[in-house]
Amino acid sequence: MDRDKILLTPGPLTTSLRTKLAMLRDWGSWDADFNAVTARLRASLLAIVDGTDSHVVVPLQGSGTFSVEAAVNTLVPRDGHVLVLDNGAYCKRAARLTTMMGRRCTTLAFDEAEPVSPEALAVQLQQDASITHVVLIHCETGAGVLNPLQQVADVCERQGKGLIIDAMSSFGALDIDARKVRFDALIAASGKCLEGVPGMGFVFIRKAILEACAGNSTSLALDLHDQHVYMEKTTQWRFTPPTHVVVALAEAIRQFEEEGGRPARLARYQANCEVLVQGMAALGFKPFLDPAVQAPIIVTFHAPSDPNYQFKAFYEAAKRHGFVLYPGKLTQIETFRVGCIGAIGPNEMRQAVQAVGQAMREIGITSMTPGPHAA
Amino acid sequence: MDRDKILLTPGPLTTSLRTKLAMLRDWGSWDADFNAVTARLRASLLAIVDGTDSHVVVPLQGSGTFSVEAAVNTLVPRDGHVLVLDNGAYCKRAARLTTMMGRRCTTLAFDEAEPVSPEALAVQLQQDASITHVVLIHCETGAGVLNPLQQVADVCERQGKGLIIDAMSSFGALDIDARKVRFDALIAASGKCLEGVPGMGFVFIRKAILEACAGNSTSLALDLHDQHVYMEKTTQWRFTPPTHVVVALAEAIRQFEEEGGRPARLARYQANCEVLVQGMAALGFKPFLDPAVQAPIIVTFHAPSDPNYQFKAFYEAAKRHGFVLYPGKLTQIETFRVGCIGAIGPNEMRQAVQAVGQAMREIGITSMTPGPHAA
Repeated sequence: MDRDKILLTPGPLTTSLRTKLAMLRDWGSWDADFNAVTARLRASLLAIVDGTDSHVVVPLQGSGTFSVEAAVNTLVPRDGHVLVLDNGAYCKRAARLTTMMGRRCTTLAFDEAEPVSPEALAVQLQQDASITHVVLIHCETGAGVLNPLQQVADVCERQGKGLIIDAMSSFGALDIDARKVRFDALIAASGKCLEGVPGMGFVFIRKAILEACAGNSTSLALDLHDQHVYMEKTTQWRFTPPTHVVVALAEAIRQFEEEGGRPARLARYQANCEVLVQGMAALGFKPFLDPAVQAPIIVTFHAPSDPNYQFKAFYEAAKRHGFVLYPGKLTQIETFRVGCIGAIGPNEMRQAVQAVGQAMREIGITSMTPGPHAA
Repeated sequence: MDRDKILLTPGPLTTSLRTKLAMLRDWGSWDADFNAVTARLRASLLAIVDGTDSHVVVPLQGSGTFSVEAAVNTLVPRDGHVLVLDNGAYCKRAARLTTMMGRRCTTLAFDEAEPVSPEALAVQLQQDASITHVVLIHCETGAGVLNPLQQVADVCERQGKGLIIDAMSSFGALDIDARKVRFDALIAASGKCLEGVPGMGFVFIRKAILEACAGNSTSLALDLHDQHVYMEKTTQWRFTPPTHVVVALAEAIRQFEEEGGRPARLARYQANCEVLVQGMAALGFKPFLDPAVQAPIIVTFHAPSDPNYQFKAFYEAAKRHGFVLYPGKLTQIETFRVGCIGAIGPNEMRQAVQAVGQAMREIGITSMTPGPHAA
């Protein structure tokens, strides 16, 4: 049976047929019809964060990480100093790309099971006045932790620091209001909660700081200021856009709006997450995170302590039942992850739980009890 | 009538329905099925340049320019010195991105209507021993000039310089044999002569120099060495791949192989180019380039000298007849460009010529004679 598997992964994820069908057409990247799609897309994105008055949005080719690197390279002056609030794998990646491009970078480390601390940030900023920018991952999908966006933004605003938010896996689902949360840049991508296909990112940049970004970037391809100036002047992308990915995202956003926008999207993902966590609990699985800090995006579960458990065999078995899972990304503890996002609802999540149970039985695991580390 | 226009643009271009249909499926980027697609794709690409023994190929997210920048950043040491052979817009872009990333860069300027000169290159390399790498654009689509790849490669090999070839618009059509042409890196992209959709590039890197590339890049996203090491170790892409673009390219390559590979692709484009040039000549149009240096990829035509001529009006009229043309990219002379590549044949080119004639009549141009600069 060559039926499509359901992706329970945090992007690429399962998209609707309507979104995919939008790719059955070729577009000239110079053409006015295509540029109108880009313009509509940008307007829709700004509306989602209520940022039309305060921000611009600059789309960029490549994966989300390309946009994160572009945001840092475009916003942070050559002699700037970036503080990365680090509670997971994506934070470490942000620190690495900042260091590689030659910007000074400091990390403030937190436990990967806990949100970052706005209080610790405030102390660090007071202790080191050289810090110019703070990088925050809104939802750290390494474990799935929801970080305290509003509080971190408030600390940055009070202390006059630029804030760069990686909202890759939260944008379009979790509440982000540019009128309440002050940020210099916020980054997301096509293939996440907007349920487009992967291949482009986009960065919201605060208008008040945009002009000062000219000449910061050491990369032509990743220079968001240059991309923005060119796009405003010509309505076109600077370099060949991923045209099919762009039109698929525009079509995905149309469905997003029809569904009821961000609140409706969040409600569906929350329902997905609840069905998942409850169903998995009934099987005996224990989530890695405290429910209070769990974002309804991706859930990390402890692997069973049974010595027969192997992620690869479990993954293959679940896939035979039609569901593609995601490995854990924690360094110390054996886990696996299940995404709650994509063009799926509680029905699919119930079937996913069922598939997980069957898969475990097939690989000879009868008790889902994790080891003592999960106590 | 909402019939698809035919794109006579140098990428994005018209792709086959079969290629687009491959995008009607979602793939997990971590999944073995998708990684097998990537592996097959890489093997096919290496076979096209007969580079299986001598080179590796590293795919990269983003447009072709992202891959050009990645190649320079990955191959050229921080204290390296790049010489760009400059006969057009894409050469200037390569020089700009090299300078922006902080590498020393010199350009050797040529007329945009002429190929670069291997003799001038040899002299320059003798005069400046500090040059470590040479950048050549194989087919400069700014005007459409075919540059002398073999001779430039021979000069670089004799003088022990690294050669980075931007083969964006030639790869898959023009002959490039890694056993005869020595290059350190060669760059192309999905949405060009392989007739995939845009959204990824790929860089062939000579195995002998690969290891020494570690640590050169100042960009994480564009570090091809890191991308390669990770892909060899895990079979996966480092960061989210544009899954739909990747499977479309794999499907496009299957059709490329069925058609008869590179020689058949070149023969079709040559036939397209001949039909175009002859048909346009019959209408009174004059190509910008000497036929001896014209690549069968994109043809630049002089605009009519009639003061009523405006590219925008002409473009819109041709589009109403079903064909999307491309503006000129020359600084001094008014021109327009017509691509010969994509999933089209001589029939479409004949119809395109017909459409150009009708479009000109509709905007009130009766004589296609260019101004005195075209003498």
